[in-house]
Amino acid sequence: MVHHEAVPHKPVGPADPTRSPRYAGLGTFARLPQLHQVPDFDVAVLGVPYDGGTSYRPGARFGPAAVREASRLLRPGYHVELDAEPLRTLQVVDAGDVDCTPYDIGQAIGQIEDHALTLMSPDRRVIAVGGDHSIALGMLRALARVHGPVALLHFDAHLDTWDSYFGQPVTHGTMFRRAFEEGLLLEDRSMHVGIRGPVYDRDDFLRDHDFGFQILRSTDLDTLGVPEAIRRIRERVGDAPLYISVDIDVLDPGCAPGTGTPEVGGLLSRELLAVLRGLGGLDLRGADVVEVAPAYDHAEVTSLAAATVVFDLITLLATRAEDARAEDDGAMPAA
Amino acid sequence: MVHHEAVPHKPVGPADPTRSPRYAGLGTFARLPQLHQVPDFDVAVLGVPYDGGTSYRPGARFGPAAVREASRLLRPGYHVELDAEPLRTLQVVDAGDVDCTPYDIGQAIGQIEDHALTLMSPDRRVIAVGGDHSIALGMLRALARVHGPVALLHFDAHLDTWDSYFGQPVTHGTMFRRAFEEGLLLEDRSMHVGIRGPVYDRDDFLRDHDFGFQILRSTDLDTLGVPEAIRRIRERVGDAPLYISVDIDVLDPGCAPGTGTPEVGGLLSRELLAVLRGLGGLDLRGADVVEVAPAYDHAEVTSLAAATVVFDLITLLATRAEDARAEDDGAMPAA
Amino acid sequence: MVHHEAVPHKPVGPADPTRSPRYAGLGTFARLPQLHQVPDFDVAVLGVPYDGGTSYRPGARFGPAAVREASRLLRPGYHVELDAEPLRTLQVVDAGDVDCTPYDIGQAIGQIEDHALTLMSPDRRVIAVGGDHSIALGMLRALARVHGPVALLHFDAHLDTWDSYFGQPVTHGTMFRRAFEEGLLLEDRSMHVGIRGPVYDRDDFLRDHDFGFQILRSTDLDTLGVPEAIRRIRERVGDAPLYISVDIDVLDPGCAPGTGTPEVGGLLSRELLAVLRGLGGLDLRGADVVEVAPAYDHAEVTSLAAATVVFDLITLLATRAEDARAEDDGAMPAA
Amino acid sequence: MVHHEAVPHKPVGPADPTRSPRYAGLGTFARLPQLHQVPDFDVAVLGVPYDGGTSYRPGARFGPAAVREASRLLRPGYHVELDAEPLRTLQVVDAGDVDCTPYDIGQAIGQIEDHALTLMSPDRRVIAVGGDHSIALGMLRALARVHGPVALLHFDAHLDTWDSYFGQPVTHGTMFRRAFEEGLLLEDRSMHVGIRGPVYDRDDFLRDHDFGFQILRSTDLDTLGVPEAIRRIRERVGDAPLYISVDIDVLDPGCAPGTGTPEVGGLLSRELLAVLRGLGGLDLRGADVVEVAPAYDHAEVTSLAAATVVFDLITLLATRAEDARAEDDGAMPAA
Amino acid sequence: MVHHEAVPHKPVGPADPTRSPRYAGLGTFARLPQLHQVPDFDVAVLGVPYDGGTSYRPGARFGPAAVREASRLLRPGYHVELDAEPLRTLQVVDAGDVDCTPYDIGQAIGQIEDHALTLMSPDRRVIAVGGDHSIALGMLRALARVHGPVALLHFDAHLDTWDSYFGQPVTHGTMFRRAFEEGLLLEDRSMHVGIRGPVYDRDDFLRDHDFGFQILRSTDLDTLGVPEAIRRIRERVGDAPLYISVDIDVLDPGCAPGTGTPEVGGLLSRELLAVLRGLGGLDLRGADVVEVAPAYDHAEVTSLAAATVVFDLITLLATRAEDARAEDDGAMPAA
Amino acid sequence: MVHHEAVPHKPVGPADPTRSPRYAGLGTFARLPQLHQVPDFDVAVLGVPYDGGTSYRPGARFGPAAVREASRLLRPGYHVELDAEPLRTLQVVDAGDVDCTPYDIGQAIGQIEDHALTLMSPDRRVIAVGGDHSIALGMLRALARVHGPVALLHFDAHLDTWDSYFGQPVTHGTMFRRAFEEGLLLEDRSMHVGIRGPVYDRDDFLRDHDFGFQILRSTDLDTLGVPEAIRRIRERVGDAPLYISVDIDVLDPGCAPGTGTPEVGGLLSRELLAVLRGLGGLDLRGADVVEVAPAYDHAEVTSLAAATVVFDLITLLATRAEDARAEDDGAMPAA
Repeated sequence: MVHHEAVPHKPVGPADPTRSPRYAGLGTFARLPQLHQVPDFDVAVLGVPYDGGTSYRPGARFGPAAVREASRLLRPGYHVELDAEPLRTLQVVDAGDVDCTPYDIGQAIGQIEDHALTLMSPDRRVIAVGGDHSIALGMLRALARVHGPVALLHFDAHLDTWDSYFGQPVTHGTMFRRAFEEGLLLEDRSMHVGIRGPVYDRDDFLRDHDFGFQILRSTDLDTLGVPEAIRRIRERVGDAPLYISVDIDVLDPGCAPGTGTPEVGGLLSRELLAVLRGLGGLDLRGADVVEVAPAYDHAEVTSLAAATVVFDLITLLATRAEDARAEDDGAMPAA
Repeated sequence: MVHHEAVPHKPVGPADPTRSPRYAGLGTFARLPQLHQVPDFDVAVLGVPYDGGTSYRPGARFGPAAVREASRLLRPGYHVELDAEPLRTLQVVDAGDVDCTPYDIGQAIGQIEDHALTLMSPDRRVIAVGGDHSIALGMLRALARVHGPVALLHFDAHLDTWDSYFGQPVTHGTMFRRAFEEGLLLEDRSMHVGIRGPVYDRDDFLRDHDFGFQILRSTDLDTLGVPEAIRRIRERVGDAPLYISVDIDVLDPGCAPGTGTPEVGGLLSRELLAVLRGLGGLDLRGADVVEVAPAYDHAEVTSLAAATVVFDLITLLATRAEDARAEDDGAMPAA
Repeated sequence: MVHHEAVPHKPVGPADPTRSPRYAGLGTFARLPQLHQVPDFDVAVLGVPYDGGTSYRPGARFGPAAVREASRLLRPGYHVELDAEPLRTLQVVDAGDVDCTPYDIGQAIGQIEDHALTLMSPDRRVIAVGGDHSIALGMLRALARVHGPVALLHFDAHLDTWDSYFGQPVTHGTMFRRAFEEGLLLEDRSMHVGIRGPVYDRDDFLRDHDFGFQILRSTDLDTLGVPEAIRRIRERVGDAPLYISVDIDVLDPGCAPGTGTPEVGGLLSRELLAVLRGLGGLDLRGADVVEVAPAYDHAEVTSLAAATVVFDLITLLATRAEDARAEDDGAMPAA
Repeated sequence: MVHHEAVPHKPVGPADPTRSPRYAGLGTFARLPQLHQVPDFDVAVLGVPYDGGTSYRPGARFGPAAVREASRLLRPGYHVELDAEPLRTLQVVDAGDVDCTPYDIGQAIGQIEDHALTLMSPDRRVIAVGGDHSIALGMLRALARVHGPVALLHFDAHLDTWDSYFGQPVTHGTMFRRAFEEGLLLEDRSMHVGIRGPVYDRDDFLRDHDFGFQILRSTDLDTLGVPEAIRRIRERVGDAPLYISVDIDVLDPGCAPGTGTPEVGGLLSRELLAVLRGLGGLDLRGADVVEVAPAYDHAEVTSLAAATVVFDLITLLATRAEDARAEDDGAMPAA
Repeated sequence: MVHHEAVPHKPVGPADPTRSPRYAGLGTFARLPQLHQVPDFDVAVLGVPYDGGTSYRPGARFGPAAVREASRLLRPGYHVELDAEPLRTLQVVDAGDVDCTPYDIGQAIGQIEDHALTLMSPDRRVIAVGGDHSIALGMLRALARVHGPVALLHFDAHLDTWDSYFGQPVTHGTMFRRAFEEGLLLEDRSMHVGIRGPVYDRDDFLRDHDFGFQILRSTDLDTLGVPEAIRRIRERVGDAPLYISVDIDVLDPGCAPGTGTPEVGGLLSRELLAVLRGLGGLDLRGADVVEVAPAYDHAEVTSLAAATVVFDLITLLATRAEDARAEDDGAMPAA
Repeated sequence: MVHHEAVPHKPVGPADPTRSPRYAGLGTFARLPQLHQVPDFDVAVLGVPYDGGTSYRPGARFGPAAVREASRLLRPGYHVELDAEPLRTLQVVDAGDVDCTPYDIGQAIGQIEDHALTLMSPDRRVIAVGGDHSIALGMLRALARVHGPVALLHFDAHLDTWDSYFGQPVTHGTMFRRAFEEGLLLEDRSMHVGIRGPVYDRDDFLRDHDFGFQILRSTDLDTLGVPEAIRRIRERVGDAPLYISVDIDVLDPGCAPGTGTPEVGGLLSRELLAVLRGLGGLDLRGADVVEVAPAYDHAEVTSLAAATVVFDLITLLATRAEDARAEDDGAMPAA
């Protein structure tokens, strides 16, 4: 990822907060440069303002704008827990938004896939900011074309492996079944984390298991603790190429009220960050952070959580890149 | 409308507010009986929780629930300005909601049409509570099958006669062009009231005129005054069978913040009610009140405005029914 | 009112905004002195945090605190329209709140009456800040003991002359019938202004008329205009001793969302202020501003409107006092 | 509970979410049938919109409506942690609301008791949704008449065993002392969970102990952990008939802002659910979930927490019913 | 303004809303191009996120970001009342924000002046989006250097001509006295519109008059009407070079709650737009729209009003440019 | 602290909540007496409504008013965990607010220092309620003059030891470096608790260490647990005179949304209280609770947390005073 030719030795970083107050200027993600302002990039943050796959509260189409505004607060120079300076290691850009129709799910998913493909390469990563969770299907389709099938690490209150909803096969509750059926996911490598609440049917879990998922319920964190959860995730994923999909409703509604289908009893944001920060070294190929519905948010609590998750995902990419550089001055092994 | 056989002489009215506080009990519209609790009805209030035709802020799918909750505040015994006791004159019911798919506009509009048809008859009126404005197409299709083409009196900040949006012919900004093309509207009888703001293109107004609409802009109310506006509307509509469509964004955002595409400079709620109350005697065959997006509302300001408009529409129906009874004990002439 | 012995020649005014920012210091009304900080007073602003008479949304118990906080914004040096410097003419104080039980209406109204009586005298005026509208009964009872029966000028969306509610004779919808029955009001001198909306029963208006009220509906303002409305009010009230009761729901919900029983189609705040400012010279003996329910307010819009009304009422008292001083250096004629 | 004659073999469940979107239709609890739509029932969810016992922020009268609306989000087919399908095991209904006067506490509590008695029987359970906590007295009085005295398991930030408040013996802070004095509670079986914050007086705890309560403070959860807390609760309650009363302010204000007397430092919703889910097999005879004040809520965070608690209480009833059926095809032992 | 060499014949307009939904993409003003994306421009919209001059509620530093987000809703193709296509007539750009220190007023005003000067020229106009009102001083200083002294048309609830506040000569309540003293304003050409409310001191108006201002109070609109108000403004300004400064608190708090010092009784947004649209042909050289404090806004009501005002100001510039082109193909007369 | 001559044997406590509802009366902190209402005091709560040092969201100038209003909810008779009756042990007063200019940081900090000095003495403690965090410098300067340098126990998400910001040496992110440089802090006794999030620069931590701080990161609480954290704090502070500074953003945004620079992943309010309650016996000489920005709060969640922290700080002072009295009837050893 970090060794393709075009990468400048010194990435263009965010606007300088000591000269330009963080609340000033156009609100790109973390006040990073736009795509057209740098010659090349390692990681692109891509907004996907689509919420036509929603089954309850819509509004995630405003998620990218809200996450960008909240990301002004990030002080992205040095990530303490991961001991990294991601924006000095990698060229990260704000790639703007996918223009997708609000009126046709199939067409929209196609537009997402096409747009993501223009950004992805073996060396370039894309982190999508939704939008509702159905956008993950577009991301996974594009990713499979570049990287082949991947392990899916899925943070969510819900399984999202139902069959269909109102006859529609692609919705924000069904797209991972589609992804499995389409061969976009590696078997026996994927995992849901944070699942909770009652479900429509006892069989929902059986079917989910058939699609090769393991589950760490929200309540499992109480009994296992975060370190053991991290161990199980790492064991499950191994060295497979990995896609991380974070539905912000994995957090408790107290931490993330601004989402479409909140579920009581979720993770605290400190827990979610602790788990994510335990994933250093995994071979992350792409990611999304979805389901921020700003009309239900308050004081940017939800969108700031999402922005922080995006930044941590970037930092995971940076630590692996740094490790690769350290190990071998020639090429990043797994990427 | 009021003389079909099954109508009881004494309609079942709302729950008694001196015994059951208005905030108590299930929130049917104005705490009226549900459809299955009366033998027949004159007017049905029908929720249409669909917002897949939205181009900006979604969320009108929660409109019917919000308007019902706000309608608890109505004291619907006697309408002073119209000197009527509508719920003692007509049997009004809450007919529940149309179940429509959130995922396919064409299918949803079909479901709305089908459901509305089960309620409409020459003697039974339906007032739809949206949902976004695209639902009006389902209502007009059903209405045309029962009543033939109608005059459209359209309160809105926007024309809603664009051609298509993202290739989709039916959206909340295009459905009245579709209605005109399908022959659902009488020529030279229709009118927009409350139009304002800039538009996408100078031609928008030319095309609108071709579809046989007249326009009363929001600013025309300043120069004409409400009485002259009423006179022009009545002159335009005449004795034609009439459909009234009220997009709540006809109101100024200060009076109706909770809507999908607010437009500065709109009608005050007092003006809107004054215009509506000037329409007594017109031959109203159906109506909708749409575009309440509760996630953007505050203190029920918007949904209460919508509930009040629905009640005034019911009262217009009641005054005509009373007039008909007074004139002729046999049958209501125009209905 | 202004000539009782104890009044200092130079009243103690509000905290100086050029030394103490308006957002600083304890939030007395308009940052005026507390009762115990001055030797005597002409006008006392008295909080009445009681809302047990509410029929719909409660919360007006927090009204006094909210109106005080909002009143920080007032710049009370010079009232332009009324050409007066009320706080330099009269000693105005914040008299704190009545302590009344939240659990028993009769007891609470008694506590209000008793507390108000400790402040009222022929020369001292009290302006109550509610609380729900039932508190007006306590005020009127106290006032009658000092001043005898009074004319009532009542700004409200609702008549508040129902008979009883759930068997309770004193509620925020019935207290003016009680006041009339108890002989607290002068016959043929009282008036409702701003009435609107449907009512429970056609007879509500007949009964109201029997209690000697005239009505200026909200819609009458459209046809009459503000100057004629003022003329009619002045004609009605004449030189009778006057009590003004302002239910903040007389305003349109767009101007005053934070209230217990909002009613669409009300007065704009500019209209309400224009009417009030037309009442100079009337013999105002007491007043209340009620039904601010802060939990439903936004950005202090409602409580600021109420605070401004309180300030205008104070200014009306000041202009009459100034006139009296001008006319006769001995005594204020009507007070 | 589950074997009275009238229970249909296959309960009528909630509206089908794959045909009717969850946001559609009248908002009964969990979209379950209304009382009049089924021949008989096992569990009734009963709204009690009364808040006249409140000492600080009122507004819980809107609690039942808000909890019903939030309960649309529940996916009530299968409860994973408790391995149960409660709505397929038991016929659960929405029994509507008690109509109680807002103006007289004694009368209101009587109306609640009377209404609850019409629903309760040895085989039929009622779960009340408040309303403020004083409603629990009406529930306990009714319950004692059907089941005799019960153990009380009380989740709350506050003891609610003060003597009186403003001379009023029944308020939302005193009703459990009244219940104890009236012999409605079993001695040495009751327990408070979640108590925290300072109190008015050091003696509050002494007196509480005299009424036979044990206390698990919020901070005890830190030292004991959830499993030990569950063990102590089960030990305390044993096989006594049990009433569970959940004041939503047992949760931390971050998880439940929409309540009348929030107290910092409370339970996380995940903890509360974990404790409740550890109570399987106890002999639950009735319950309430109270003190949701929607005007202070945001994005339904509080009302969704309350709805989830109600669903978990239903599931506890279902698991015991299933156990009873499994053990003995004839009769449920303890009920 | 429109004839400097670099202007392209066909300006680059906003993103196409039929391909890119209005909620998508980076939120420049009206989705117009950024400064660096066009070769030259006629009008620049410049954010000035500074609020250190505030005396009450701060937060206008977030005004530019909020106005930009709200401006997504504009459909800027054709302005009906002014019969213009401003973005096809003029090249309008989003020039980003001034980076100014939050900590020193003098330095900040200097930074604003310097930055504005880089954009202004005899042919290039700047419309500033605040920020608090003190930023107008930076704009006027820059403007005077390019255009000499100007007439000031000032829409506001407040005079903003106090002397100093806490010893600070430049604040959001004093900057127009400074501007007058510095010779930035033409004598006898300036006017305040919308003034209302009490003031600190009777002399405030006397002093204001000495600085050569005329005043149209908010209440004057009631007696004069909008057309006469327009006539007086036009008479006052004549053909002088003009600066328009719009403090959004000129609107009533019901229309614009999100501001720092709201004042009850203001203009309706329809009135403000009507006045602005009556100013066609005046020689507008620069403008600002200030005091949007988003933390106090709701549903973008205030920021949308501000965005609409900015668009109308742009359109006024466009109509004059069109007139100039029509009259004379060589040069724009007054600019 | 408690033995200076003027202290009455029985302190004047808060208004009696059984006679005056907690929502009634002027909102002093915890409804305690004002400074002028008691002859002397042990602890003064002092509002400092200054937010000119803010770098992101302003609004903490309204913090004192909001914390006072929220503190009405406190039941301050008996603190259970600390087994104390602080308001019966110590005379606590509300000392009102510092009047400080909003326009000049240096002047404002001086005004804070001067005002605090008028209240501080070897026996009298001041707890400041901010305001932004820069106010701590004024407090520390005053404290040093009375008590000499102190240990600083600093709860915060951020270090606040940057060098300067926009050339301004005193801001809410730099004041503790200034305090160290000015010799106000004891070396090797100070500690940050709750630090988290990325930072601007890797060196931020190095420099912080140079200033003699230890750090307990938010994530350290996960690994160490609260009891060990308390042990380390106590070990660090020892018997040094102590200043506790609580930036409310030490809490997670879910618990404290209403603050200027929220940071995801913070302490739960239960954790913060547990840590504070573990500090009994330390020699607390002064404290502040800062950065409550009410415009971003919801339902007083944040301001109630701050009020509770203030009360716990008072209680820590009371327990030490009680211990001192118990040990020795003559003098409090360390104070």
